[in-house]
Amino acid sequence: MSLIVQKYGGTSLGDVERIQAVAARIEGYCKQGHRLVVVVSAMSGETNRLVSIGRQISVSGHYPREMDVLTASGEQVSAALLAMALQQRGIKAKSMLADQVKVLTDSVFGKARIQKIETQSLMAALDGGYIPIVTGYQGVDEHHNITTLGRGGSDTSAVALAAVLGADECEICTDVDGVYTADPRLVDAARRLDEITFEEMLELASLGSKVLHPRSVEFAGRYKVPLRVLSTFNKGPGTLITVERENMEQPLISGIAHARDEAKVTVTGVPDIPGIASKILGPISAANVEVDMIVQNTGADGLTDFTFTVKREDFDRTLALLKPLCEEIGAANLAGDKEIAKVSIVGVGMRSHAGVATKMFDCLASENINIQMISTSEIKISVVVAEKYLELAVRSLHSEFGL
Amino acid sequence: MSLIVQKYGGTSLGDVERIQAVAARIEGYCKQGHRLVVVVSAMSGETNRLVSIGRQISVSGHYPREMDVLTASGEQVSAALLAMALQQRGIKAKSMLADQVKVLTDSVFGKARIQKIETQSLMAALDGGYIPIVTGYQGVDEHHNITTLGRGGSDTSAVALAAVLGADECEICTDVDGVYTADPRLVDAARRLDEITFEEMLELASLGSKVLHPRSVEFAGRYKVPLRVLSTFNKGPGTLITVERENMEQPLISGIAHARDEAKVTVTGVPDIPGIASKILGPISAANVEVDMIVQNTGADGLTDFTFTVKREDFDRTLALLKPLCEEIGAANLAGDKEIAKVSIVGVGMRSHAGVATKMFDCLASENINIQMISTSEIKISVVVAEKYLELAVRSLHSEFGL
Repeated sequence: MSLIVQKYGGTSLGDVERIQAVAARIEGYCKQGHRLVVVVSAMSGETNRLVSIGRQISVSGHYPREMDVLTASGEQVSAALLAMALQQRGIKAKSMLADQVKVLTDSVFGKARIQKIETQSLMAALDGGYIPIVTGYQGVDEHHNITTLGRGGSDTSAVALAAVLGADECEICTDVDGVYTADPRLVDAARRLDEITFEEMLELASLGSKVLHPRSVEFAGRYKVPLRVLSTFNKGPGTLITVERENMEQPLISGIAHARDEAKVTVTGVPDIPGIASKILGPISAANVEVDMIVQNTGADGLTDFTFTVKREDFDRTLALLKPLCEEIGAANLAGDKEIAKVSIVGVGMRSHAGVATKMFDCLASENINIQMISTSEIKISVVVAEKYLELAVRSLHSEFGL
Repeated sequence: MSLIVQKYGGTSLGDVERIQAVAARIEGYCKQGHRLVVVVSAMSGETNRLVSIGRQISVSGHYPREMDVLTASGEQVSAALLAMALQQRGIKAKSMLADQVKVLTDSVFGKARIQKIETQSLMAALDGGYIPIVTGYQGVDEHHNITTLGRGGSDTSAVALAAVLGADECEICTDVDGVYTADPRLVDAARRLDEITFEEMLELASLGSKVLHPRSVEFAGRYKVPLRVLSTFNKGPGTLITVERENMEQPLISGIAHARDEAKVTVTGVPDIPGIASKILGPISAANVEVDMIVQNTGADGLTDFTFTVKREDFDRTLALLKPLCEEIGAANLAGDKEIAKVSIVGVGMRSHAGVATKMFDCLASENINIQMISTSEIKISVVVAEKYLELAVRSLHSEFGL
């Protein structure tokens, strides 16, 4: 008898029929004798609907505490509905809000981080024979305010619960069959991976493969929670995210990721002195804008250029934040580009093989795709290209590396 | 500087524009220097929408705990939106869920009763210069479960908050201008009352004038909370509900109320022995069905007939509950009628005047309206008639008593 934490996303809970189908799926696990804790997202479209009403009202301001109270209602609704659907099948289940479980977070509304999860009320529910249906994506701070965890928050909730409960597995039940070597909508030859390491998944996730949020993968890796991505409605084992790949013969590259929703910001003619990078990025991170790639070249004449990427939705805010700063530090110019995309190749096999980067750059050059930025880690190489070349780049690389 | 508790109903918060109008109204009170605590209902239609989804899922069962979690999300949304709309106007405001305030109730989901309200967090918010926007209609029980107060719950929340805070006035802001001598949609000559006593209002409210829920009026009377019913969007003083009417010259009758949503249940040929009434009503009240009028005639031959009214929505459930019981006690017959309406005349002046009942019955007889049931209190006379006579009965009585 295993203890499994299952997370169902918004699409899986999109309407009454789907909620009932999820309840049937859960019933199947119960019949196999597993103990379950279920984490739910809001019904698909619901969070956007709430945010849209909220924005109509907060025309010229940003009221994150209230936005969290507003959007947190979405998971409350789906948790109650799923609990009902299970009771309707004669299964004992009860909704538990983050605040009833006690998922304690810091007070950064809209992007809160989990600090502690109490297991007492969850264990009491499990011991009473109930399936707890926990609202994902949300928590409470020490002052009893409702907080939300931001993007991918429900995945993070599920993994964190699995970690504190010592669950045997954390299943992310979603609308895809698993993790693919590339986005199947872009590359026909893309295939599902049976296994992938946490490190690879982390690089893939943060690079936009959208299956799992990087925070949840990081969490799972740190606490050694076996994590599985699988389809809610199709049978299949999905993809298991493991600490070490069992197959010792590691492929060079395990997947290709891409991200469309990024934008590039360049500050040119910056004085090349110590502390300049933090001076530029400080106010941006203080405003809770996530910075992704950062590139700075060795400068000449005591001046340097500084480029980084942010989410496209944060682009205008970032420029507005930087404008006064650029004047203050005497930068020559501030420019940006929203029409970019990022393409990355990821694989633990890359560590021990030279020449992967050359192979990648050659492949792109042979398609006449200009590389605007390059950034690398031990198991990943990312390039920024004009957005119009995205599909071409992904397909060429998928074929080049024989995925 | 007064402390005022204001409650806004669902119609007043029906869309973004109305929420903004309510924020403007609240700003007006702030500028006059008042301190405010605001209680909100769910946006109109929202509770029904949620209940409808819930019922689609709980096809053959009743899961009141989850239904409360589900519907409580409605006030959470409107509280957050109104807080945003106020912040947008530069006014400090924060949503406070029943659980954050701490509105402690018993555990009767769907019909919970308030046991205690803590004032500490509310006072802290007020002292910090915030307008607390409290979710009406809901509470938490001692086990931290979400509960809802049932019909008229938001009015009750507002009055209870006004009581514990010692507020100078509790304003129920709604879509009518105040309390009328009869339903203006039925009687053209109906006029707004400047004042009405708690007792009269209690009789009027419980008889279906729909402006205020009887529980809230009872609460206000018991804790001497000055209660005012007035329009959210039109200017005007509304109707003040007072302990004693200032005008000593009391009219005979202050208003005529009616209720359409009732049904009649009759058990005939019941053994006329002690304890039979509680034997019949016991299981009904245990099932949380509210019984309104109860009439039992002196019997003959050791048998009696027993008639009572329930909400029309509870009619089928009531019959189902009574059927086995009737066989058990050997009742002759169980019958019911959904096509009834109740008409009542109310007035503290009635106490000292004989002949009011005769005048009422004469008036109905002259219109050929048959009276099916009669029930009286010190300041009220109610009759049940066939539903088709409802309008005629109300209009005739309004004219007969010169309102």
